[in-house]
Amino acid sequence: MKIWQKDKTSLKEVEKFTVGRDREMDLYLARFDVMGSLAHIQMLESIGLLEKKELEILTAELKQLYRNIEAGQFVLEEGTEDVHSQVELELTRKLGDVGKKMHSGRSRNDQVLVDIKLYLRDEIEQVVHEVKELFDLLVSQSDKYKEHLLPGYTHLQLAMPSSFGLWFGAYAESLVDDLITLQAAYRVVNKNPLGSAAGYGSSFPLNRTMTTRLLGFEDLNYNVVYAQMGRGKTERIVAAALSNIAATLGKLSMDACLFLNQNFGFISFPDELTTGSSIMPHKKNPDVFELIRSRCNQLQAVPNDIALMTANLPSGYHRDLQLLKEVLFPAIQSLKDCLRIARLMLSNIQVKEQILADEKYKYLFSVEEVNRLVLSGMPFRDAYKKVGLDIEANNYHPQTTVKHTHEGSIGNLALEQIRSAMLAVLDSFQFQSYRETIARLVK
Amino acid sequence: MKIWQKDKTSLKEVEKFTVGRDREMDLYLARFDVMGSLAHIQMLESIGLLEKKELEILTAELKQLYRNIEAGQFVLEEGTEDVHSQVELELTRKLGDVGKKMHSGRSRNDQVLVDIKLYLRDEIEQVVHEVKELFDLLVSQSDKYKEHLLPGYTHLQLAMPSSFGLWFGAYAESLVDDLITLQAAYRVVNKNPLGSAAGYGSSFPLNRTMTTRLLGFEDLNYNVVYAQMGRGKTERIVAAALSNIAATLGKLSMDACLFLNQNFGFISFPDELTTGSSIMPHKKNPDVFELIRSRCNQLQAVPNDIALMTANLPSGYHRDLQLLKEVLFPAIQSLKDCLRIARLMLSNIQVKEQILADEKYKYLFSVEEVNRLVLSGMPFRDAYKKVGLDIEANNYHPQTTVKHTHEGSIGNLALEQIRSAMLAVLDSFQFQSYRETIARLVK
Amino acid sequence: MKIWQKDKTSLKEVEKFTVGRDREMDLYLARFDVMGSLAHIQMLESIGLLEKKELEILTAELKQLYRNIEAGQFVLEEGTEDVHSQVELELTRKLGDVGKKMHSGRSRNDQVLVDIKLYLRDEIEQVVHEVKELFDLLVSQSDKYKEHLLPGYTHLQLAMPSSFGLWFGAYAESLVDDLITLQAAYRVVNKNPLGSAAGYGSSFPLNRTMTTRLLGFEDLNYNVVYAQMGRGKTERIVAAALSNIAATLGKLSMDACLFLNQNFGFISFPDELTTGSSIMPHKKNPDVFELIRSRCNQLQAVPNDIALMTANLPSGYHRDLQLLKEVLFPAIQSLKDCLRIARLMLSNIQVKEQILADEKYKYLFSVEEVNRLVLSGMPFRDAYKKVGLDIEANNYHPQTTVKHTHEGSIGNLALEQIRSAMLAVLDSFQFQSYRETIARLVK
Amino acid sequence: MKIWQKDKTSLKEVEKFTVGRDREMDLYLARFDVMGSLAHIQMLESIGLLEKKELEILTAELKQLYRNIEAGQFVLEEGTEDVHSQVELELTRKLGDVGKKMHSGRSRNDQVLVDIKLYLRDEIEQVVHEVKELFDLLVSQSDKYKEHLLPGYTHLQLAMPSSFGLWFGAYAESLVDDLITLQAAYRVVNKNPLGSAAGYGSSFPLNRTMTTRLLGFEDLNYNVVYAQMGRGKTERIVAAALSNIAATLGKLSMDACLFLNQNFGFISFPDELTTGSSIMPHKKNPDVFELIRSRCNQLQAVPNDIALMTANLPSGYHRDLQLLKEVLFPAIQSLKDCLRIARLMLSNIQVKEQILADEKYKYLFSVEEVNRLVLSGMPFRDAYKKVGLDIEANNYHPQTTVKHTHEGSIGNLALEQIRSAMLAVLDSFQFQSYRETIARLVK
Repeated sequence: MKIWQKDKTSLKEVEKFTVGRDREMDLYLARFDVMGSLAHIQMLESIGLLEKKELEILTAELKQLYRNIEAGQFVLEEGTEDVHSQVELELTRKLGDVGKKMHSGRSRNDQVLVDIKLYLRDEIEQVVHEVKELFDLLVSQSDKYKEHLLPGYTHLQLAMPSSFGLWFGAYAESLVDDLITLQAAYRVVNKNPLGSAAGYGSSFPLNRTMTTRLLGFEDLNYNVVYAQMGRGKTERIVAAALSNIAATLGKLSMDACLFLNQNFGFISFPDELTTGSSIMPHKKNPDVFELIRSRCNQLQAVPNDIALMTANLPSGYHRDLQLLKEVLFPAIQSLKDCLRIARLMLSNIQVKEQILADEKYKYLFSVEEVNRLVLSGMPFRDAYKKVGLDIEANNYHPQTTVKHTHEGSIGNLALEQIRSAMLAVLDSFQFQSYRETIARLVK
Repeated sequence: MKIWQKDKTSLKEVEKFTVGRDREMDLYLARFDVMGSLAHIQMLESIGLLEKKELEILTAELKQLYRNIEAGQFVLEEGTEDVHSQVELELTRKLGDVGKKMHSGRSRNDQVLVDIKLYLRDEIEQVVHEVKELFDLLVSQSDKYKEHLLPGYTHLQLAMPSSFGLWFGAYAESLVDDLITLQAAYRVVNKNPLGSAAGYGSSFPLNRTMTTRLLGFEDLNYNVVYAQMGRGKTERIVAAALSNIAATLGKLSMDACLFLNQNFGFISFPDELTTGSSIMPHKKNPDVFELIRSRCNQLQAVPNDIALMTANLPSGYHRDLQLLKEVLFPAIQSLKDCLRIARLMLSNIQVKEQILADEKYKYLFSVEEVNRLVLSGMPFRDAYKKVGLDIEANNYHPQTTVKHTHEGSIGNLALEQIRSAMLAVLDSFQFQSYRETIARLVK
Repeated sequence: MKIWQKDKTSLKEVEKFTVGRDREMDLYLARFDVMGSLAHIQMLESIGLLEKKELEILTAELKQLYRNIEAGQFVLEEGTEDVHSQVELELTRKLGDVGKKMHSGRSRNDQVLVDIKLYLRDEIEQVVHEVKELFDLLVSQSDKYKEHLLPGYTHLQLAMPSSFGLWFGAYAESLVDDLITLQAAYRVVNKNPLGSAAGYGSSFPLNRTMTTRLLGFEDLNYNVVYAQMGRGKTERIVAAALSNIAATLGKLSMDACLFLNQNFGFISFPDELTTGSSIMPHKKNPDVFELIRSRCNQLQAVPNDIALMTANLPSGYHRDLQLLKEVLFPAIQSLKDCLRIARLMLSNIQVKEQILADEKYKYLFSVEEVNRLVLSGMPFRDAYKKVGLDIEANNYHPQTTVKHTHEGSIGNLALEQIRSAMLAVLDSFQFQSYRETIARLVK
Repeated sequence: MKIWQKDKTSLKEVEKFTVGRDREMDLYLARFDVMGSLAHIQMLESIGLLEKKELEILTAELKQLYRNIEAGQFVLEEGTEDVHSQVELELTRKLGDVGKKMHSGRSRNDQVLVDIKLYLRDEIEQVVHEVKELFDLLVSQSDKYKEHLLPGYTHLQLAMPSSFGLWFGAYAESLVDDLITLQAAYRVVNKNPLGSAAGYGSSFPLNRTMTTRLLGFEDLNYNVVYAQMGRGKTERIVAAALSNIAATLGKLSMDACLFLNQNFGFISFPDELTTGSSIMPHKKNPDVFELIRSRCNQLQAVPNDIALMTANLPSGYHRDLQLLKEVLFPAIQSLKDCLRIARLMLSNIQVKEQILADEKYKYLFSVEEVNRLVLSGMPFRDAYKKVGLDIEANNYHPQTTVKHTHEGSIGNLALEQIRSAMLAVLDSFQFQSYRETIARLVK
């Protein structure tokens, strides 16, 4: 296995190993790589490292490339290592040496840093959009099914009356808190690392404030060593926020699988959305929910995967970081898929009527009975004792209507307040502020 | 092993197993349990479930208990299962049946939910305080050592000049982003679950808005099913935010261990802060940094521990959640310890002078040389070629001063901007708004 | 926070931080530390580094200390850093300088390495014992309840008939595979690291083969650098094997919680083993199983915790490793607790009779019906069609007896084969071979 | 989003979501699916569920298909859901209804179970082969470089002399322990789940012992519920064993990155194996080792990923399990890649001579000096004091030869014993016993 005994085969092995799945992953970044370059060259021209004419030529070509990418006409050619090389290749083919000039004052390190930030910003916006759609559906289903009671369990034991109104509403509200954490991740993402070069800055008089503005970032990653340190950290923070949404979806799916089980039998779905068996007419396999649950558990593992890949690495760039792309990027697609398919399922859910009419659920109302007696004047201890004795004596015939009035209860779902909370979180992202800037940059 | 063949021994086993370390963990919650009760009884009186006189008696006794806890005079007596039982026990001992009245319209489930929220809010404030102290130190050390150059590494290979100014400043800025995520966790924490009872609300006309106000929460967990769902979720979100701080500290510690290694030899510490060997005078073991690193890696594992303990559980309370206390609570103490001891270490760091004067570091300046030639008018390709040839011909004598001027670079550390960013995050917590409310409640 | 401005307080802080919970953890190691020393001094004498008389004195004192530890009379005194210091302290108090002589040719590093190996070997034996007890119970319950049918679920949907015989038997067989992995961990544990000193060996002519024999190890960790590398790795391998047992117990607990849920209602437990509510007579909270499940999920997280604490550390000792004790040691105790309490629960389980008589389970037998027709000569497609049509026409009246005969099926549980497999695994540990050796060493 | 308002688009969404990457993953299983069918039909014929003629026709066709797969001529056609469907499709195309007959007494569940077991058995053998190759190289490099001293570090501080002989040998021995755990995983894998059908067995008189023999399994997964439970568990156990190998490789890579760093400068590699910079002649970026490290950290995360995806699932099949394929299968390929490329790198390593001649390493010998004096008769305390004083008085001129003689030390690397240990583990797999059986089955 000596190199000097080898033909080129083994060097190809090194290349193959180091490139790995990077070419596939870099396709996610193509649009954003062009954005970064468009901003970078404007800045270079402003500090005299590019002539005006050169800027114009490069800008035109990059915008054309951007349109090609959007039209799906961008490929990483055989033998091109990554997206940055491909972009450079296409420019130099057309423009010759001018194409190379755009790399002054920049390193691969800050180039990929800014690409990932721009990419994640875009993906977060898409995820937020999908979450909002699911949220709206959940709120509307909560309202629609607010009269449909459901057993409430603690310790998986029958405990108290619940309702589909509460059930749908709970997951809606869960998404509000999830987006609060995603908004923090967004703020961490939305800072400009460009200009940090290889992680130690540049002796060129770069104007990083200018690229920050051109790319619509909220602020800079100032310290260049920190800018580089953001790699891995940013991914982990985004993954953690996404895993919160995943945890919400996963729990919803576990509930759905349980409710669809025949011993519960609380919900159903059209045949087109479940798998079954012609010979077992009772079977409605909740494959979609099982796979959402499984995907969401995968997603919950991602922050830990990233932590393991970055723990104990000293500061400064390490090639280890390259592989974070293949851990995080497909996971984001997976989450969006889960959000969309969950919406399809829940739009078509069929809710069983009169579930609590079944005799086996009557004890759910025992606490209600006690409270009712208390509210009518009986001391709590007496009321408690009376209901206990009634049950023992088989003399327990509870009212099976539920009159809860406080905030967030069966009779007062507080959907308006939950909706307001969601709107407040959504507003705090302020996506439009970057979107308009980017539109100006690439149009 | 039949129960009916057993004396009471085995039932004690069940009790021992189910209580576990809960009594120890509940000590963290005692103060907050009393707070929750103080608010709850005011509300009960307002809706007629407690008489004015009863409220007064209970309030007085609870405030006394609060003072006892603060004075360290609260213990969980042998045989008491948890903090809630202990508080109730102390009240009923003194007040008789009135003591029990405060439990109307409340369940253990929402009681512990609100305790944990109040506890975490308090701990987050403490963590933020410790982070702020460390941040201030890092900024000040960054400024103090801004002229001290250091090799910058990529791939752990010598790459470019860096500086202690950059190094300290990077970790300062890292803490800003960490607090952004902690602030989101804080917002998730700072919502009131009280009134959700066993997770399905109550038929009493509770006024949850009132307890929200009395406890200084920013808002409610409205939906009662969601309020219960917050258990586990809240812990995981807080743990994830804390793990970001831990990751920052862990990386700093890895750097410190490396820099203290004799092959690097960039920093040193007074003997009192390292361990050594009388016979190996070169040895300054960085035990403190190794243990910070290890503790911080433990902390990074906590979100995953919680995810594993809660994944795939359907909605509704499960006793599994009890054990989250022993996963999270000591971890928070551990993080605060790490923050404090890191501060002690970094306050006493000794930075080696003139590191880059060593011949072996001269190639760090090769990119600087190229850029210098470019800025003086030479085309990049020619400059690059000239420096390469000079190196080959042993004719490479770089200038070893570094003139970086852009934002966040060696010569322009942007400490003011970083400090402003930190202040903005700190302001967004608005701790004072709850602190004053709580002071009124318990004084 | 300057050291030179400080009184001793801050140095105490360093000490407090570095000691951490180590004193508590080291109590687990005391017995094994004495064992290691007993072997080490015999070897020292054999190579002339200890005189015969010194060996006798030291041996007598160490054996006395061993008896004290076994009698629970060993404490780490205030101010003693760890178990090794305490043992040394007690020896030198009584014997003066001779007490210190036993440290020749040894370092703290290999001393704690061998302690942990001896400790883990002992704990593994205890865990195996507990697993065996649970296994026996499961096999016996499987046999006892082999006629009791149960619905079998796929996708949590009713699918086919199962039985309690199958259910208990499945978990019994699961433990066999778990012990296969634990036996591998045992083999990794059961190798002698003593003599590796600080991880680079010793210039003394140590006889490591001799200490290997005296301590009953199966073999040596030969390479001294590898011996040190075993720290962290051994813990992770043991934790992974334990997590397999935990996963088995956790799944069993999830099943139990579900089966105890009233919608299933397949099993029950005496009141003394569940928690309930006087007013909700239907409630039998399965707290024990919930806590087993939760503890077992904690245990499943331990290998990852260790991986995070050791990933990316270069070879050689790091103080980080100290904290692995507090991650692993209590986890082992927790697993043994879970195994014991699971046994208590399952000994007292009450299994519902005639579960499948309920009309809602009749479709479980549809595949049986088809197969029955096939075996009686009808082509599969026709049989399948006929049963499908019968079901559609409400003309489906299945036989509800189950006649499965193949290996491992309802009618042929293969308990003997499973028991044989377990015995083969148990034999492969060969605990007696070390136990006798140790008895000779310490008696 | 109502289904009844939809054309078929949204159902395609369900199909797309549920199929996911399964078609890609199933290509790994094709060969093994055919094996399983070949054994199954022989058994069906033996119990009268297939005629002799049918068996012959099916066998011939399946063998042809097997050859096609081996020749790379097998594809999953558009619209085919998984490998099982594709195989069935190809058979029925050629043979008509006979093709369907091979599914009697079998379910998709046990079919995929046995496929995965056969696949993992095969992969484990490949991994063992790669490990053996790396082991041989490490042993040979250890022997070759046994005279080359190296600083040994504890706490990353210079501590004692080490050697490249020790360094290579340590990783060789590490692989022995890793294979011990892999052999346990192999034993768990090498048991036959076929015949468990949907996890509850079959009313057909299957002969599971016969398929066990035909497929070369060591034993059966007897209990059919346990056989199903093996899904997820088997993957996790295999992943944990693989992660041990990964941890070994990862640590080796971290060492290599450090040793290649210019401050250490202990090793080097030919330019073809590192990446560099024409302008920074000092730079030899260890990209391959960084990527091995990163891949190995990914691999270390896999057991946890699986745990998260399976924790808290009750017994019985869930579709969640499908996704384990995409977590584990590519990870196995990744590990084999890492093993191969590590071998390429280490075959070409260049080791620096006379490292310890550098003055800065002289204190490494202080313990040696003390021991030397002790062995020449001076009491330890006096020797220790003398060396300490010599160092203080700048009178310390250590011998820099190292004479360690004990087992596993610099002067006695015990490579023969380590090699024997490896051979013993390798023997215990007994791969040939299944390989011959399979050859008979498919030839």
